[in-house]
Amino acid sequence: MSQQRENAVSHRDKVLTLDNMNPFVKRVEYAVRGPIYLRAVEIEKELKEGVKKPFTEVIKANIGDAHAMGQQPITFFRQVLAICSYPELLEDNSFPDDVKQRAKRILNACGGHSIGAYSASLGIECIRQDVARYIESRDGGIPSDPDNIFLSAGASDAIVTVLKLLMYGEGRSRTGVMIPIPQYPLYSAALSELGGVQIQYYLNEDNCWAMDITELKRALYAAREHCNPRVLCIINPGNPTGQVQTRQCIEDVIKFAKEERLFLLADEVYQGNIYSEGSEFHSFKKVLFELGPEYSNTVELASFHSTSKCYMGECGFRGGYMEVLNLDPGVKVQLQKLVSVRLCPPVPGQALLETVVNSPRPEEPSYPTFIKEKTAVLAALAEKARLTEQTFNTVPGIVCNPVQGAMYTFPRITLPQKAIDKAKESGHQPDMYYCLRLLDEEGICLVPGSGFGQKEGTFHFRMTILPPTEKLKLMLERISQFHQRFTQEFS
Amino acid sequence: MSQQRENAVSHRDKVLTLDNMNPFVKRVEYAVRGPIYLRAVEIEKELKEGVKKPFTEVIKANIGDAHAMGQQPITFFRQVLAICSYPELLEDNSFPDDVKQRAKRILNACGGHSIGAYSASLGIECIRQDVARYIESRDGGIPSDPDNIFLSAGASDAIVTVLKLLMYGEGRSRTGVMIPIPQYPLYSAALSELGGVQIQYYLNEDNCWAMDITELKRALYAAREHCNPRVLCIINPGNPTGQVQTRQCIEDVIKFAKEERLFLLADEVYQGNIYSEGSEFHSFKKVLFELGPEYSNTVELASFHSTSKCYMGECGFRGGYMEVLNLDPGVKVQLQKLVSVRLCPPVPGQALLETVVNSPRPEEPSYPTFIKEKTAVLAALAEKARLTEQTFNTVPGIVCNPVQGAMYTFPRITLPQKAIDKAKESGHQPDMYYCLRLLDEEGICLVPGSGFGQKEGTFHFRMTILPPTEKLKLMLERISQFHQRFTQEFS
Repeated sequence: MSQQRENAVSHRDKVLTLDNMNPFVKRVEYAVRGPIYLRAVEIEKELKEGVKKPFTEVIKANIGDAHAMGQQPITFFRQVLAICSYPELLEDNSFPDDVKQRAKRILNACGGHSIGAYSASLGIECIRQDVARYIESRDGGIPSDPDNIFLSAGASDAIVTVLKLLMYGEGRSRTGVMIPIPQYPLYSAALSELGGVQIQYYLNEDNCWAMDITELKRALYAAREHCNPRVLCIINPGNPTGQVQTRQCIEDVIKFAKEERLFLLADEVYQGNIYSEGSEFHSFKKVLFELGPEYSNTVELASFHSTSKCYMGECGFRGGYMEVLNLDPGVKVQLQKLVSVRLCPPVPGQALLETVVNSPRPEEPSYPTFIKEKTAVLAALAEKARLTEQTFNTVPGIVCNPVQGAMYTFPRITLPQKAIDKAKESGHQPDMYYCLRLLDEEGICLVPGSGFGQKEGTFHFRMTILPPTEKLKLMLERISQFHQRFTQEFS
Repeated sequence: MSQQRENAVSHRDKVLTLDNMNPFVKRVEYAVRGPIYLRAVEIEKELKEGVKKPFTEVIKANIGDAHAMGQQPITFFRQVLAICSYPELLEDNSFPDDVKQRAKRILNACGGHSIGAYSASLGIECIRQDVARYIESRDGGIPSDPDNIFLSAGASDAIVTVLKLLMYGEGRSRTGVMIPIPQYPLYSAALSELGGVQIQYYLNEDNCWAMDITELKRALYAAREHCNPRVLCIINPGNPTGQVQTRQCIEDVIKFAKEERLFLLADEVYQGNIYSEGSEFHSFKKVLFELGPEYSNTVELASFHSTSKCYMGECGFRGGYMEVLNLDPGVKVQLQKLVSVRLCPPVPGQALLETVVNSPRPEEPSYPTFIKEKTAVLAALAEKARLTEQTFNTVPGIVCNPVQGAMYTFPRITLPQKAIDKAKESGHQPDMYYCLRLLDEEGICLVPGSGFGQKEGTFHFRMTILPPTEKLKLMLERISQFHQRFTQEFS
């Protein structure tokens, strides 16, 4: 019987094809490493092979990858990691005592004193305790319970895990998840894969990308017609938009979530990247507690942090954690079980997280260097945030909100109708066409706004502010010139 | 309206409960870190708090975690990692030249020369190239294309990713996946989560846990009545069973897979752990090529490897890779897109993988120490494999196949009917009851066979052979005594 089947089809027929693969996976889109990034990698190869271009290198401003843009790692972190990797260095007198003390704290908590052992699935216990203390200190003493801390492989891992728990129902009773537009496309990608319903709420570009309760209500009530909205995701400080939500706004959002019975997901990985005067980071957790027990004892919240951003920029280590609040105890057991299947988050990433949440104290020998390095990174980022906003706003056809925080600008660009027509002819979104042209002509890799979502008829791009100041200046200048040339070409 | 809803339900009602959470997640079971492990952690805490027990420490033989059991990391690996973490150590004269050369190779391939930068989503290119060369050398020169290599966060990550691609259809046309029984419960857990259909084929305990084509056919044809079988998973060397499949058996399995149009998943993470004389590791890839182009150009295969096992035992780093073969080009693009959403595998794990696939060569300064350390680990494991088999087979009521490879023994235990009845009374599987009693009375943590699957009416446990020889001897002795006591109690 199987022989007949064998003969009926060609030998080269695949078991797995585009037609019979997981349709949810096919729907996934992830613009940050999408077609434009792949083209940038191609161009880099061409440059290496000696192909002549109007530029000598590709500047990749498509992704928040600080070290790739030349930011130096924090000495203290890396010294601790070196000792954790090779404990014989504990005998090396060139390492300061606080470095050795931190490395010992980590190694003593590892099975067999090795970061090569699996950790507990939720992460190493003493690191979870130190994370809890770190959160308490960030939030002015509001208590944090280590039992609510789950270490993770970057924030992405934890976000997808919580979304996975929340998936339920079919058709009109399927879980709906409110996500900001523009959004970081991990959210849309995860929801495509999990089969969750995306409910888009728009950030208010005219009000510096603030959240707006009227808009949240509009989106929620409309969604109730076709799904079961249960989750509200917030990215603060914003990615790709760079805003920092005000305390009042966060309070309003929490009240809205409680009233409408929504599970809150607070993506706060840029909590350490605040630049604008008057802007301040308020964690959802803190505001929840400030609203009193009626809120702090009821509203379900998962908040996420990462070692990849802030002044650390240690993306490659995939370190991160989440804090969950008011989770149903039975659900929490299920969450613990689910993470145990993958055994544990990468232990070097956990060790790095320990150095971040337990960084040198003023009386310790590594403190002066640590604070100097940290301050320099953050000051440079603040300067680059200002420079970016100022430069773009001098270019006709580019309008740019202040970069209050995070690592990106998301300026609005005006595109001539002829350019829009031309893009459609070539099968691209207009801002994708714009970005592809910019990449080919100037060697600058940005991500088109369509990859994050934007209001119908508006166009944007996301650019990181991470390149070193001199390179950033050059890049801003080239983008400005390109924009004017492009506009002229299609006018 | 929402106010009414608010009033209608108690304030403490959760948005997310056991009743409305993801039902697929609820179905997930993962015995290796299941109830017995959680009880072991509890007992450890009690011991620390001074609670008196008939033992002073818990021996955790539930998981293949070599470093936690005292195995020392390979010096060369950790020296390279220390330099990658803190490149200032390149100036340190106590590190050999080959260590520095390997660290430079890795750092030069990282964005900004930092392992804190994101890598390409498939992994660092030069490491993928070195993996391909490593596979070629393992397989006697059969070519390996770096474009087919995907680095991953341990093998688990890659296995789940490929299974995800293969999910398709509903009801009777849902993808069925053939898994061995006993199996490593990652497979059943992933299938529960993804909603795939588990097709169980039994390994032949009476023939040293060999695969059996008649049994594969039985399982396949029965499954065709209720699902669409498309995938065949093999674990070789076996986990939890410790067998090494013969070349002939692998050849038969490949022919079966081709004839029945099955996508092959070869879990080969224990490829470096071979102990029995006469046993040899044959990769599915190699046998596929030896069968000629009719096979090597058609049969779809994904094979998996990891830095967590073999002589390395570096579980905490979550390093690994897969090689895919004959994948439909469109599907491969989808796979590349899917892995890009998580940005990249942990870079320290990638760096560790580089040291494994590009380990010291005989002419290099680190070679003598490296080969001494590697040989010692493998010789000790081989000795412990023999010791385990021999000891258990002297105990009436325990029967144990040779541990030909991997890191586990999966002996069959005879339980008196009264013990089985007693277990049922207390709501446990009989072998779970046995393991819980063993844990409480002797402080030894094993995993019951029911967590891996076993023939109806048979009982087993999985024990790692990783504890240091003296501790292993003690453990074997205590288990033997316990078994006799337990048998007597219920006779």
